[in-house]
Amino acid sequence: MPAPIEFYFDFSSPYSYLASEQIEALAARFGRGIDYKPILLGAAFKISGMKPLPEIPLKGEYSVRDFERSARFAGIPFVFPEPFPIATVGAARAYVWLADTEPERAGAFVHAAFRAYFAQGRNIADTTVLGEVLRQVGSDPAQALTAIQQQHIKDRLKSVVDAALARGVFGAPFIVVDGEPFWGNDRLPQIERWLQAPF
Amino acid sequence: MPAPIEFYFDFSSPYSYLASEQIEALAARFGRGIDYKPILLGAAFKISGMKPLPEIPLKGEYSVRDFERSARFAGIPFVFPEPFPIATVGAARAYVWLADTEPERAGAFVHAAFRAYFAQGRNIADTTVLGEVLRQVGSDPAQALTAIQQQHIKDRLKSVVDAALARGVFGAPFIVVDGEPFWGNDRLPQIERWLQAPF
Repeated sequence: MPAPIEFYFDFSSPYSYLASEQIEALAARFGRGIDYKPILLGAAFKISGMKPLPEIPLKGEYSVRDFERSARFAGIPFVFPEPFPIATVGAARAYVWLADTEPERAGAFVHAAFRAYFAQGRNIADTTVLGEVLRQVGSDPAQALTAIQQQHIKDRLKSVVDAALARGVFGAPFIVVDGEPFWGNDRLPQIERWLQAPF
Repeated sequence: MPAPIEFYFDFSSPYSYLASEQIEALAARFGRGIDYKPILLGAAFKISGMKPLPEIPLKGEYSVRDFERSARFAGIPFVFPEPFPIATVGAARAYVWLADTEPERAGAFVHAAFRAYFAQGRNIADTTVLGEVLRQVGSDPAQALTAIQQQHIKDRLKSVVDAALARGVFGAPFIVVDGEPFWGNDRLPQIERWLQAPF
């Protein structure tokens, strides 16, 4: 079985959401799975000096239009959420906890959390909403929400994020195929060709 | 005849070069021409607070890899040039002068200048090299290089750049189809679908 594709993402990244809706089917056509790795874009932006797209003059207005058009282009439901961006540390900790303790639910949680925020306009930074998403994938919200307050889960996410930054991840989605890095939802066509044969 | 596609570019932008090698054939399939509009990325970066890609920590190293891979993906000759980036105000003024006085050579000049820099490693910020590129497309280098020192040509470029900034152009390539803006070489697939029918 070939190595899984590493998929670095932030739950507040629209392009990560769009890529997350497409990467599993793409990977499966080449017998690959996905290794989801949550990052915190705020930490990456501190290193690179970048800012959330909508805060950048000129580029910001274009970006919202491009999020929506890119979603229509891919046939993916998308409604630009308010507020945006949001703190995703809670959702990211929930993911690492699930990946350790209920790995069979972790992939479903990624999709449920992304869709809650970007298709249904539900603020997953809100603990109540995060609990609903956890319940939706069959997990026990009380147990999960307690777990993500524990230091070892906080440390676990920190080590995932630090490893990503050390590896050069500066944005999201950031997708690594057999060591080759690809940044952005718009690199899916290159990823597809790379999976056929590195070029 | 439908309106031409507006193609905003900077001669020092690798993704502008890659798009310039593909946009004419794409446009022609839909009966469209190209209206080339040189901009100066430095002026756009002042407004948006952005920097040349290779100067951004982490993102910079990835970018050079992505320029080269994106060129191979599209089957376009590319050698990352040194020095990079370069001042493109001279080449941009030569373009606006040609567009006014020898419009039949202006498109060929865009391609010749881009290829000189990004395929042949020739520094088009150097007046001698710029003169060679002008001669290559059948223009008189002495006449062109004198013209671009004149205030009305300097003003002409400034008005093109100012109009682009006022229109929201923050990067390059920036491609406008019937009023719809697309940023980046990687938006060519969306542009193709938009030309079929806005979505």
